[in-house]
Amino acid sequence: MQNKIVKWLITLGTGIGIALIPPPADVPREAWTLLAIFIATIVGSIVQPLTGSAMVLSGVVAAALFQAVPIERALSGYADKFVWLVLAAFFISRAMIKTGLGNRIALIFVRLIGRKTIGLGYSLVFTDFILASFIPSTGARSGGIILPIARSVTETYDSRPDDGTAGRIGTFLMTMLYQCEVILCATFLTGQASNLIIRRLALDQAGIDLNYSIWFVSAIVPSLVCLVLIPLMIYRLFPPEVKETPNAVSFARTELEKLGTLTKPEKILLAVFIAVVALWISAFWHGIDSTVIAMVGISVLLITGVLEWRDLINETNAWDVFIWYGGLVMMAAELSKTNITTIFANGVASVIGGWSWPIGLAVLALVFFYAHYAFASITAHVMAMFVPFLAVTLALGVPAGLTVLLLTYFANLSAGLTHYGTTPAPVYFGLGYVTQRRWWTAGLIASVINILVWSIVGTLWWKLIGWW
Amino acid sequence: MQNKIVKWLITLGTGIGIALIPPPADVPREAWTLLAIFIATIVGSIVQPLTGSAMVLSGVVAAALFQAVPIERALSGYADKFVWLVLAAFFISRAMIKTGLGNRIALIFVRLIGRKTIGLGYSLVFTDFILASFIPSTGARSGGIILPIARSVTETYDSRPDDGTAGRIGTFLMTMLYQCEVILCATFLTGQASNLIIRRLALDQAGIDLNYSIWFVSAIVPSLVCLVLIPLMIYRLFPPEVKETPNAVSFARTELEKLGTLTKPEKILLAVFIAVVALWISAFWHGIDSTVIAMVGISVLLITGVLEWRDLINETNAWDVFIWYGGLVMMAAELSKTNITTIFANGVASVIGGWSWPIGLAVLALVFFYAHYAFASITAHVMAMFVPFLAVTLALGVPAGLTVLLLTYFANLSAGLTHYGTTPAPVYFGLGYVTQRRWWTAGLIASVINILVWSIVGTLWWKLIGWW
Repeated sequence: MQNKIVKWLITLGTGIGIALIPPPADVPREAWTLLAIFIATIVGSIVQPLTGSAMVLSGVVAAALFQAVPIERALSGYADKFVWLVLAAFFISRAMIKTGLGNRIALIFVRLIGRKTIGLGYSLVFTDFILASFIPSTGARSGGIILPIARSVTETYDSRPDDGTAGRIGTFLMTMLYQCEVILCATFLTGQASNLIIRRLALDQAGIDLNYSIWFVSAIVPSLVCLVLIPLMIYRLFPPEVKETPNAVSFARTELEKLGTLTKPEKILLAVFIAVVALWISAFWHGIDSTVIAMVGISVLLITGVLEWRDLINETNAWDVFIWYGGLVMMAAELSKTNITTIFANGVASVIGGWSWPIGLAVLALVFFYAHYAFASITAHVMAMFVPFLAVTLALGVPAGLTVLLLTYFANLSAGLTHYGTTPAPVYFGLGYVTQRRWWTAGLIASVINILVWSIVGTLWWKLIGWW
Repeated sequence: MQNKIVKWLITLGTGIGIALIPPPADVPREAWTLLAIFIATIVGSIVQPLTGSAMVLSGVVAAALFQAVPIERALSGYADKFVWLVLAAFFISRAMIKTGLGNRIALIFVRLIGRKTIGLGYSLVFTDFILASFIPSTGARSGGIILPIARSVTETYDSRPDDGTAGRIGTFLMTMLYQCEVILCATFLTGQASNLIIRRLALDQAGIDLNYSIWFVSAIVPSLVCLVLIPLMIYRLFPPEVKETPNAVSFARTELEKLGTLTKPEKILLAVFIAVVALWISAFWHGIDSTVIAMVGISVLLITGVLEWRDLINETNAWDVFIWYGGLVMMAAELSKTNITTIFANGVASVIGGWSWPIGLAVLALVFFYAHYAFASITAHVMAMFVPFLAVTLALGVPAGLTVLLLTYFANLSAGLTHYGTTPAPVYFGLGYVTQRRWWTAGLIASVINILVWSIVGTLWWKLIGWW
């Protein structure tokens, strides 16, 4: 009880403390209040006087109550299509579990490369690598495709979030998959949706066109280094209790024989699955939104009886994520509408105006990277900070090619810091295999590795291929 | 299975049939597609090839897929503050049940006037009458205050939605409460929120100021007649199996003695409850939105531990209602943005241009009334139809006072037709005591009584007090 009061004091103290600081001259009162509530919500979801979701809902309520945003906008995150893509991903993964198809696919993977836990992880990362080369929807790709398989793998190894068995394999696997996912976001122009925005901004502001091949060639060397180092780091940090599974291959073979041929619900799900993926891949031609495609898939599963309505409304994990992710998306979106980030960026730039460009670039890139703690999407981060930071670094005399590439990749990699950094984060995190403390610890260590590799190996590689 | 195919043929046939009709000249293709999807969704939620909620979700998906509205707007109902008020009402009523406070209040009511079932109903209607005289939020009033008590009353009588005991008391009580609620909406300027919009429109268009006392005095005579007739009709239509409860009073007395004094959670809930109601009542002065007030109340219940987070996410009924009400609110709001209702209204007006005013008024008022089948809120109905219909009736020569009052009250009363007619409708209906067929049957019969009483008794009363 006393413990709880201390937690409340920290959370409310942060919010009230910031709110009492007079806002900078150009910042409207509402924007400053929102900043205070946002930071208090984040602090509160770390120290947890209430469960994180309840903290966020309280933050949404506070934002409306203290008139930081009107109620209509305070609720706007719950109509956000990316939030609904997360919901849809949960429902599809429920169908994977219900029909047993996810289990079957997992067993096939286990049969193929299941001799070691890390091999299992890489088989999924490899799948995600292929997908990222043409599917820019991270929510769809990870939440809809990789996650259901990962979830079945962990269930196959009797590793579950709630009963003390998370450490067997789930904690390691979910952390590895998400951190690798973030690297894959950075690796392809199609790695995630707002990379296309970055391409536009870089062309407009610095005259550099990061087309598909330039993007990939520049990224692949540091990307591969990180795809080796970061899983190894996570393996050391959260060593899975199940490390070697010598009997897994024969076990999987036996289980697959028991399962026999595909059942009718499995066939329908597989067909829906392939159709949804095919439509996602071909989105460039038909232009149908990926949330719409996912929701059509769910409608088909409902119509064919593969999913029943009660499967959806009883998927309470999904509603939990819906509440907190929707709330954070709203706050981040509303904050990015204010001029707080711009003022912040300009303030930083004015301080370091006289420095040499390598030091200036280093400081700015780090600030740019760690600012992602305040963003619930890469898009919001890019929209708020990419242009001012690019402008400042160019003004400092940093070669255009170098700063464009560094900021571009950092915009993606920084999403690994938190459990709300980009669309798939709440999907993986929401399963409950990884505590917030562990998630953030892994994110922080991975961020150091990513920053070192991309700024040393990357910079040398880009010099070598003539980008600066 | 064959039955299911027929149901799908009816549902899809309706939608495709309407979609294939070429839209009127001024109606954009998207608006017409939306109309087709809306009507197909309504038909589908009546014949039910899928459960109603799944039908609505499929309608939302179809609206986005067939580009009737972009996905961002298709999901907008899920950020609607009235939809969230419904969610909040469910959560508050969960607390009422969890703490036992609802049960205690119900027992007090039973002790007071529980000798007959209809007496129980009237005790709640009387409470609602008092509340409606100063609380314009119907969702708050009914969903947050009346419903938890009603739900506890039905539980006390062992009448539950799912186990065949709905007919004991629940079906009768929920139907009576909702139909009376609609009459109370019409009775006060503060009966529901958009009455304030009506007041503005009537002043602007016809120069008539329906202030608080004029509104009430004009309504009270037909209102009282309906508050007697309609419960009697419902009593005949859905006779509660539990009609007389001679032992209820002594039973309640014994139970209340067993319960003893208020527990701590009950006290906190009662305090929150009174604070929320007090803030709702005083909204005129402080201007805090009623959804915000309700959500602050829920935050307080979470913070104090009266409700736990899992109570919220496990309240699956709430999520069910959230999905379908949010979908219908969106469709109705989007339809009212199109010019379809205006074209429809103008079409009607042009046909009856040459008629005498009493016949013209009768026809127009009936069309105005039954058009509410297409609306998920009184506000939307008023915004779309009040002005054109008022204009047409005035042009026909109908006395301004008469047509203003008739359209004003009909705008409220027509909400009784469906289970989505106004905010509290999905709250009462969503409990599951009343099937959709029964709900609509009661709504249709009540509509005939309401129309007859308000147009005969009302018209005479308004003549007597000099309104025309």
